Amino acid sequence: MGLTADIIAMGTELTTGASVDTNSAWLSARLVELGVPTRRHVTIADDLSTIVREVRESAQSARVVVMTGGLGPTADDMTREALAMAADESLVFDEESFKAIAAFYASLGRQMPETNRRQAMRPASAEVLVNEWGTAPGVRIRIGGADMFSLPGVPREMKAMFAAYVGPAVEAMDGRGHVSVRVLRTFGTGESNLAEQISDLMEVGRNPAVGTTASEGVISVRVVASGDSEDVARRLAQNDIDEVRKRLGVLVYGEDDDSLASVVGKRLTELGRTVSTAESCTGGLLGTMLTDVPGSSAYYVGGFIPYSYEQKNESLGIPMALIKEHGAVSEPCAEAMAERCRALTKSDYALAITGIAGPGGGTEDKPVGLVYIALASRDGVQVKECRFSERMNREVIRDRSARTALNMLRRKLCEA
Amino acid sequence: MGLTADIIAMGTELTTGASVDTNSAWLSARLVELGVPTRRHVTIADDLSTIVREVRESAQSARVVVMTGGLGPTADDMTREALAMAADESLVFDEESFKAIAAFYASLGRQMPETNRRQAMRPASAEVLVNEWGTAPGVRIRIGGADMFSLPGVPREMKAMFAAYVGPAVEAMDGRGHVSVRVLRTFGTGESNLAEQISDLMEVGRNPAVGTTASEGVISVRVVASGDSEDVARRLAQNDIDEVRKRLGVLVYGEDDDSLASVVGKRLTELGRTVSTAESCTGGLLGTMLTDVPGSSAYYVGGFIPYSYEQKNESLGIPMALIKEHGAVSEPCAEAMAERCRALTKSDYALAITGIAGPGGGTEDKPVGLVYIALASRDGVQVKECRFSERMNREVIRDRSARTALNMLRRKLCEA
Repeated sequence: MGLTADIIAMGTELTTGASVDTNSAWLSARLVELGVPTRRHVTIADDLSTIVREVRESAQSARVVVMTGGLGPTADDMTREALAMAADESLVFDEESFKAIAAFYASLGRQMPETNRRQAMRPASAEVLVNEWGTAPGVRIRIGGADMFSLPGVPREMKAMFAAYVGPAVEAMDGRGHVSVRVLRTFGTGESNLAEQISDLMEVGRNPAVGTTASEGVISVRVVASGDSEDVARRLAQNDIDEVRKRLGVLVYGEDDDSLASVVGKRLTELGRTVSTAESCTGGLLGTMLTDVPGSSAYYVGGFIPYSYEQKNESLGIPMALIKEHGAVSEPCAEAMAERCRALTKSDYALAITGIAGPGGGTEDKPVGLVYIALASRDGVQVKECRFSERMNREVIRDRSARTALNMLRRKLCEA
Repeated sequence: MGLTADIIAMGTELTTGASVDTNSAWLSARLVELGVPTRRHVTIADDLSTIVREVRESAQSARVVVMTGGLGPTADDMTREALAMAADESLVFDEESFKAIAAFYASLGRQMPETNRRQAMRPASAEVLVNEWGTAPGVRIRIGGADMFSLPGVPREMKAMFAAYVGPAVEAMDGRGHVSVRVLRTFGTGESNLAEQISDLMEVGRNPAVGTTASEGVISVRVVASGDSEDVARRLAQNDIDEVRKRLGVLVYGEDDDSLASVVGKRLTELGRTVSTAESCTGGLLGTMLTDVPGSSAYYVGGFIPYSYEQKNESLGIPMALIKEHGAVSEPCAEAMAERCRALTKSDYALAITGIAGPGGGTEDKPVGLVYIALASRDGVQVKECRFSERMNREVIRDRSARTALNMLRRKLCEA
């Protein structure tokens, strides 16, 4: 491994769980792109001795350390003190920095509170990073083998300071790796089944590093390639992407920020076709997913949420006799919902979902997790019976049902 | 300081910035409630030696260590190995655990892949934490002075495992602080406006500590009281809760896990009344929120997603002339949607939403963020015009629209 980075976030609001730290993930993504992978993130409460210990630990093992937070004017802002202690230096007052803070206040037409003098202190050997986007100046200091950059915790200021100071400094460092990161999105199988098909690519220590993660039924395959040049890294990543695509075939629905709904929408737009929805147990979630995509009015005409028996009968025209004979959660009912929805809306495709999301309402015959999903098109209706585990909760059963419906349409559109 | 906790999250998807770690904040909030403040969160890539070093560091300084992730079946899942190395123990195969994993697969009607054998390994002195919510069993082990709990990284499974194993174990520990945490949920005003009304309670250093956080339009007021006994802490917190409720009045809709939809559902159930929905720009999100609540079929009869002009006309019977004269995003159209929806479904209340969620589709007259929300009842129809900031994105505009609709119904039901 070449250069590595550590990221240290300061703040009791983080360690008490009142706020989620999103800065560290953002910084990691930028550093990976610069060829400096992150070894660890550490989040620490406003506690001086713990901060000093973690700074020293990072100074020993990382080449780049980015710290966020703890630069404010109050007593619980301890980053400056901690850096001075970790470097065995005293804090000095920086006249230039003080003038810059005063000027920032003046530009807002506000009086600078006296407490802000604290913010003009820096460890003796440190360089001040002027903050043009807020009041808290940053600090750059060398401790051990590490270049340490201390930035404000406010995301907007942090990002601007990273771009102004950290990015250029890191780009000038020797020994950075050249890295290419690619992500494939898949739907339709479990993580371990998928991993078995690419287990040789996932071996530890291999370059590119290939890994899988699961989130909301979507299994993502991440390829991180390193090389002597950007070109080499890019080519290595592309090779693996091609290989994974070949092995997983139609399971792969897209890359990076693609969602099932955005991919379906793109294909419907290409074909100039439309879709509608009829949802019982998902209560509008499928419509929500389809319309999450900007411009979806080009292909989504709308739909129905016939939650009660009466609404299935009255708004969609499902015969009460059918519901009484087979139940609302049945293959014939799903089929009729999709067909009627397609006929009423005159859309090319109609998706229908009816099932038991729980936690109540299950029977021995029709347990919680039983969901029927139907897709009507000019070729007729296909129905999929899903039996989601009862141990999935209501939210997950509904989410998977809606995504499974989108995936049925996606697969259908692949053939079109 | 009494007992403290460390939280360690594993996963290259976290240290590369592909995913944001939300588990650690959730765990910290739960541990604070149990009187065990968190000293630090550490997030580590799938790198064995780094994991071992951090586990050893935490074993020396924390009483409780919760680890998340790295328990999957693949080679980059290294938590089991790391715990064994940190404890200087070998990994052993746990027959019982293996049977439980196999049973989970069987319950899904799926074949267990051979790689899942890895998941039945545990450090020799460790106890297996059976995972009834997924395939990855957890591990509990004592290293140094710390009780270490290793949980899956999937949030749903992690939370269930915390409740089943970690919470009860921590509750049984001596030396915890006595803390009472209460959270009020409010909707209908901004965070700084709300904070101004309770600024004296929010002073730094005060006990209870009172703070606000904003998430999806919901402003939460968090009260954390410490005392010499649970009783004292509870009473202190209750005093502040009463005071905050008095000052904020009808802005407060509930506590803890209450959602606008669950509160509305409870009140509708009490009154024996029903509701239906007609959604254009939210595309089913309001229906989704209403039906997120188990048992919502008792009061939610269903609804319509008339996304296109034709569907507004055909499924709801909105006259084309009205749409042509006023536009689909207009007060008369919202009013007609709610009235027609109530009439068609014979529900007591009907909510309708029509607006421009963007990013496209805005005009000077009708900019992105303009949304009309209507509530029909036997008293007639009320319409609210919302002008959400263009700087909100599509997702946020849709979310706030649906919540504002629920809040209108909540306020209406307060009078009923």
